Amino acid sequence: MSFDPLGRFALLVAAVPDSLNIPLTMLLVFGLAKLLAELFEKIHQPGIVGEILAGILLGPSILNWLQPTDFLTALADLGVMFLLFRVGLEVKSSELMKVGAPAALAATLGVIVPFVLGYVILTLWGAPTVEALFAGAAMVATSVGITAQVLSSRGVLWHTASQLILAAAVIDDILGLLILALVSSMAKGQVNVLELLLTSILAIGFTVLVAKWGTRTMGRFVPGIEKRLRSGEVQFNIAMVLLFALSLLAMRAGVAAIIGAFLAGMALSETVNHRVHDLAHGVTELLVPFFLVGIGLHFDLAAFSDSSTIGLALIILGAAIASKLVGCGLGALSLGWSNALRVGVGMVPRGEVGMVVAQIGLGLGVIPKPVYGVVVFMAIVTTMVAPPLLNIAYRGVQPVAPAEEFRLG
Amino acid sequence: MSFDPLGRFALLVAAVPDSLNIPLTMLLVFGLAKLLAELFEKIHQPGIVGEILAGILLGPSILNWLQPTDFLTALADLGVMFLLFRVGLEVKSSELMKVGAPAALAATLGVIVPFVLGYVILTLWGAPTVEALFAGAAMVATSVGITAQVLSSRGVLWHTASQLILAAAVIDDILGLLILALVSSMAKGQVNVLELLLTSILAIGFTVLVAKWGTRTMGRFVPGIEKRLRSGEVQFNIAMVLLFALSLLAMRAGVAAIIGAFLAGMALSETVNHRVHDLAHGVTELLVPFFLVGIGLHFDLAAFSDSSTIGLALIILGAAIASKLVGCGLGALSLGWSNALRVGVGMVPRGEVGMVVAQIGLGLGVIPKPVYGVVVFMAIVTTMVAPPLLNIAYRGVQPVAPAEEFRLG
Repeated sequence: MSFDPLGRFALLVAAVPDSLNIPLTMLLVFGLAKLLAELFEKIHQPGIVGEILAGILLGPSILNWLQPTDFLTALADLGVMFLLFRVGLEVKSSELMKVGAPAALAATLGVIVPFVLGYVILTLWGAPTVEALFAGAAMVATSVGITAQVLSSRGVLWHTASQLILAAAVIDDILGLLILALVSSMAKGQVNVLELLLTSILAIGFTVLVAKWGTRTMGRFVPGIEKRLRSGEVQFNIAMVLLFALSLLAMRAGVAAIIGAFLAGMALSETVNHRVHDLAHGVTELLVPFFLVGIGLHFDLAAFSDSSTIGLALIILGAAIASKLVGCGLGALSLGWSNALRVGVGMVPRGEVGMVVAQIGLGLGVIPKPVYGVVVFMAIVTTMVAPPLLNIAYRGVQPVAPAEEFRLG
Repeated sequence: MSFDPLGRFALLVAAVPDSLNIPLTMLLVFGLAKLLAELFEKIHQPGIVGEILAGILLGPSILNWLQPTDFLTALADLGVMFLLFRVGLEVKSSELMKVGAPAALAATLGVIVPFVLGYVILTLWGAPTVEALFAGAAMVATSVGITAQVLSSRGVLWHTASQLILAAAVIDDILGLLILALVSSMAKGQVNVLELLLTSILAIGFTVLVAKWGTRTMGRFVPGIEKRLRSGEVQFNIAMVLLFALSLLAMRAGVAAIIGAFLAGMALSETVNHRVHDLAHGVTELLVPFFLVGIGLHFDLAAFSDSSTIGLALIILGAAIASKLVGCGLGALSLGWSNALRVGVGMVPRGEVGMVVAQIGLGLGVIPKPVYGVVVFMAIVTTMVAPPLLNIAYRGVQPVAPAEEFRLG
């Protein structure tokens, strides 16, 4: 426990730093996020964009009131984990498997096109090969959190295009991991083929195993465990342990923690009762603003000191949007043009995943500061343009409220 | 954002420290807490004691797997804030006011008796005056979180004794603040009477104002605000903003953040619908184990290197339990012997509040390390003995489930 963490004795002891003032941090982030969400909804724009904007406002470029501390980062990570968990609860793995083939195609094309485009643009801009490869890798990673939130709050997770997006996002994550592993080992000057092979087997093996047998296993074991336990909210406790355990295992297998969280939700989708949905929803409602604000917090105008960087940023941004639209859209074309558009738009946000890749490049010393700034800019803006585009692409699709969806299931 | 916070690229970059591995930390704390809670329930002991024990196990004395990091401390603080908020939602301020007089008496006697007893014991042990005064002050502070959790999960918050405990805990917190302020200024060698007077006016003013007019104000304004907002879970969002705002104001007024959280819940108890209860309950269920484990994490056997310290620890522990039983019990005697026992037992836990006071004494250099260890030991053990004693004291009292209670309200 840090010294007087709640700061109530501030009069008596040395002042508590504001970053440890939990109620103040919570009020700032949650309050401003919800205020801007409200204002955006009033002008018929997606509230989610307002919440990211709250992060930009609070961040270094404008008010400079908040830094991304360990605490805020942890809440953001938890927030997107719970978001994907809740989405998983509303998805049946059998349904997801049905769109497996077009999803694999959409994910693959949606990885190749941005990677190649990023590499070409950076090369033309005069960057060395490794830097260009890394920028391409950062353009690959889709952040499914934003799309999942929009689809979930619109009540259109049941739609084929939505199912395809979720399946493609899982595959995209694995492909992104492999590309990053390849590019990183090239940056280090040694490509270990065996290690890459093991990495891919581990990642694919974990995902396929849990996606395929998770639901059945839970259906077999949860009721029995439940009967034997007596303390408190038994189903919720089981769900939380599975959520954290699969997130951890996913990380160990090289997949993102949120993919583990999604798989945990999906594994429980046919077992747990409505109470678990409600309780997990409470956590999600509280923490998702931290995820969104956390993305905005990284926006830093200081990266754009000269006009050539601004030019590069705009080109990369355009390429990032177009490449997913075209790549993923082409892959999903077998389901018709309107679904192809939905899938393409849904895969556009790069969010926190793109930023982590750029950070790794920065850490390895292969991405210079300005290019890092460009990638972060691209990651944030692709995340902000997706919600309004999704609203247009899904216009006319009938919503099913999560609760009803569950009861129908 | 720290470098690769979710650690998924652990193969590619330098290993992520485990303390930043969110799923691992969550799994360890939540999983072990719930496992021990279950084992305790199996042998008909309160699960809450098992959860504190999980913290002792994970802490420095036994496994040494976890340190109280900023992240864990923040989750613990949030956990106890949500716990008191939820308890507040189930309490009507008008009901609380009815037991105001006996509560004030119980709180006052429950502050004087342990303070004097602690001072006398330390003086007899040979400690200097300021040290003895500080130890007395650390024995004053009641941690109402544990009692609130036990009463809430037993469904006996409706009982007069429970209402009296909550009212007394609020008053106790203010008295504790004043004693600590007095003792700290004595430790610094200058007692500023004007400052003490201002501190008390601010603390009492804030509490009385919110307790008295909070419910009416919310009843008047919330429905109007609600009608004008459109984004998402409107009532929950309003509730969260009020929770964080009142916790912050409470801190600024010198009262504990959890008192602000409790007042926020109480102010909303007659306004918000059942959905807010459920959503807040989800957050509480997730985070309360972090509060309980956080208490246990501070248990450190290393403090007890010689037998005289062990002796002092046992004497202080006995005095801490007896003094609240007698002091608070006497104050509540007008409601009969059995209620006096319930109130006395309910005020026994010192928990995190006692530890914060000891830390301040340590920081000011007036409490030596061994006495600090003794106080922390006392704070943890009083917290662990209270739940079983409460179960005995409330034997035969009919439970009302929170949900029903709300619907009756």
